[in-house]
Amino acid sequence: MRPQEIIAIKRDGGDLSENQIHAFIRGICDRSWADYQISALVMAMFTRGLNERETEILVREMVDSGEVLDLSDLSSPKADKHSTGGVGDKTSLIIAPVVAACGVAVPMISGRGLGHTGGTLDKLESIPGYNVQLSGAELRSVIGKCGFAMAGQTEQIAPADKKLYALRDATATVPYVPLIVASIMSKKLAEGIDALVLDVKTGNGAFMQTFEESKKLAEAMVHTGEKFGVRTEAVVSDMSEPLGQYVGNALEVYECIKILRSGATPQMQQTAELSIELAARMLKLTGTCESVDEAKTLAAQKLSSGEALERFRNNCRLQGGDISVFDEPDRLLAGDIEHFEIEADRSGFAASINALAIGGAVVEIGGGRTLPTDKIDNAVGFRCNLKTGDEVKKGERLGTAFCRNRTQFELVSEKLRNAYTISPEPVSVPKLVKMVIQ
Amino acid sequence: MRPQEIIAIKRDGGDLSENQIHAFIRGICDRSWADYQISALVMAMFTRGLNERETEILVREMVDSGEVLDLSDLSSPKADKHSTGGVGDKTSLIIAPVVAACGVAVPMISGRGLGHTGGTLDKLESIPGYNVQLSGAELRSVIGKCGFAMAGQTEQIAPADKKLYALRDATATVPYVPLIVASIMSKKLAEGIDALVLDVKTGNGAFMQTFEESKKLAEAMVHTGEKFGVRTEAVVSDMSEPLGQYVGNALEVYECIKILRSGATPQMQQTAELSIELAARMLKLTGTCESVDEAKTLAAQKLSSGEALERFRNNCRLQGGDISVFDEPDRLLAGDIEHFEIEADRSGFAASINALAIGGAVVEIGGGRTLPTDKIDNAVGFRCNLKTGDEVKKGERLGTAFCRNRTQFELVSEKLRNAYTISPEPVSVPKLVKMVIQ
Repeated sequence: MRPQEIIAIKRDGGDLSENQIHAFIRGICDRSWADYQISALVMAMFTRGLNERETEILVREMVDSGEVLDLSDLSSPKADKHSTGGVGDKTSLIIAPVVAACGVAVPMISGRGLGHTGGTLDKLESIPGYNVQLSGAELRSVIGKCGFAMAGQTEQIAPADKKLYALRDATATVPYVPLIVASIMSKKLAEGIDALVLDVKTGNGAFMQTFEESKKLAEAMVHTGEKFGVRTEAVVSDMSEPLGQYVGNALEVYECIKILRSGATPQMQQTAELSIELAARMLKLTGTCESVDEAKTLAAQKLSSGEALERFRNNCRLQGGDISVFDEPDRLLAGDIEHFEIEADRSGFAASINALAIGGAVVEIGGGRTLPTDKIDNAVGFRCNLKTGDEVKKGERLGTAFCRNRTQFELVSEKLRNAYTISPEPVSVPKLVKMVIQ
Repeated sequence: MRPQEIIAIKRDGGDLSENQIHAFIRGICDRSWADYQISALVMAMFTRGLNERETEILVREMVDSGEVLDLSDLSSPKADKHSTGGVGDKTSLIIAPVVAACGVAVPMISGRGLGHTGGTLDKLESIPGYNVQLSGAELRSVIGKCGFAMAGQTEQIAPADKKLYALRDATATVPYVPLIVASIMSKKLAEGIDALVLDVKTGNGAFMQTFEESKKLAEAMVHTGEKFGVRTEAVVSDMSEPLGQYVGNALEVYECIKILRSGATPQMQQTAELSIELAARMLKLTGTCESVDEAKTLAAQKLSSGEALERFRNNCRLQGGDISVFDEPDRLLAGDIEHFEIEADRSGFAASINALAIGGAVVEIGGGRTLPTDKIDNAVGFRCNLKTGDEVKKGERLGTAFCRNRTQFELVSEKLRNAYTISPEPVSVPKLVKMVIQ
């Protein structure tokens, strides 16, 4: 069947068969479909819809377009966490060592940042020498030695997704639930894991801005995971303000090491809380713990005991990173960075701290990418000196911008200032975990 | 505005502004839009729809993407005819000289065949030496000397359409009325004409197979032509059987020269009738004649008097063609072609002669293209020995295939045989001109 004939079926609102979806995904991989044919079918899928059966076939074909990671030589259960992306979202760096310390293997395959949302690989690369490009064999070896590995998607994992995602990004076909499900789940299912916990962000700094959309995506992914025999849960979590204290690649690693070393400051509390929540669900799904409460206690203990820190140190050594940052986290803060303060112009309570605005400002000063090919400055970023709900006096610091120079700061100072709303009355703090879908 | 933002508007069913459509068409021409972005927007247009205002803007932007032919130094009125394409559809070769002989200038810019429908340029190239690649200046000069010219679209005329059409052909986005209107009308409006007659085919050998679709397309094109100040009419004509007697490039030129020299045989009658109908409407729209009836009489007289033949001979000389074919049309029939007969397997009446099947068979033996880059064999083709409604005795010839050899014939013999339905009872003949839209 020619690409045109398959495209025409979906164009007219018809359902695609297994053979037709197979031909599409194979056509992406062997390049027998031109980019413009791929994007035409994707737009037809977006506007005409994909039903549950088509979505499942799409996921399976995308998984089958590459290899499934073989972790069968590891006797421990395997689990991963995936986040739909947000601002200051750094939980992977705490979850992976905590869960590994509890005896669960974590093959954490992550992405890079694009737009206002950061990426785990970029954060890790702010540790000098840390290598995120591991082959399947290297990944297995690192996991075998320290319980977890953090790396980028290999060419062998769901190769169709890589091509498809780049085209979707360029053709305004990203925000459609079945396509998002196929993209995320094909990569996660190729990790050969037993359990998966999804962190679906909601709020202005999230990909899915409304709660309803986030819930729909979370449900669809949980459904798909279970269909494919992976125990899956999703947490819908708040992304209306940046998560925790810092935004920016090196600054976020700094925050995580601080938490792993000596616990969370009040501004870092969200990071620790969400990490424990997600880690606990991974422990429960793999049967490591009987209940979420028991799992939270275990995870919190691995964190406070320093075991998780040691896991991360071992992992860092194995992946080629400079482990001195675990003893002296300040080494992550570049010396030639200047600090510029955002001050409150009135007294009151922080009613909202716009995550999208702060994420966008960090991109503008070089801390993120507009195009996938952009270079990143790991040292720049932003510190939240207070969080939503906190009281502030006029003239006090709301946040601190970490910039290369004043010119850079002036580019974003207004955006950062406008990110804050100060209310004269006390405000209610948004719940961090809004819903759990099991 | 980035392409993604414009695509997203139509993806969500919104209306595009003039600026947005302008950016799209300019993006096609200056290559700032990637092919996959163009095809994504086109699919969104197809599935979400373009309203009348958007279609008009699209037409205007496509016209403005190139040059409008300047025929202002010609004092005569200017008119053209355009057909949506069919099998054996050769009227241009009669209409252009007939209308020119009546004092109307005809800048006939035509296309090539694709699939089962033929193209005027391919037909003309079966006259040895005939050059269809004229510059704007050459076109003007030929029209000035003989009243008409027949040539391909120059790079300067609606360049956005060329790129867009190729992408639509590859992405199943051809059959949508507003996009068809934009493609056809942008080229025709760039001819700088006063009047336009559209021949919208309907039936199994036509692009629009149902009468309702054909009517809708005809109405939309007439509406657009009038909006742009070009007097426009459309004829919806039958394409359920091949038009006239011959199908195949050289054979169709042969049929036209036969008609211009000595009138139509019974099997050629449709060709002559439709040519006169369309020519008459061009004469009426340009004010050359008061009524269609008067115009038909004038056109028929130019045909029977030999004046049209002389016009064509002059034109052929000016465009570099071998004019001996006008005196000896048999020179168009290649000597090394073998004739294979399709015979009636029962007595009765020809109830239907499937145009799509015959057009398809001619493509298969090399007389047409499957891909735009395919080479064409001008000498092969098919002759209808009888027409729908004609009586036939068992064993009599229904049609004759003109093939290079028996192997070629055997490839299509069944398809050709199956193209004919013989009914024991007399059948009603489909009306050639089904509707006129003014």
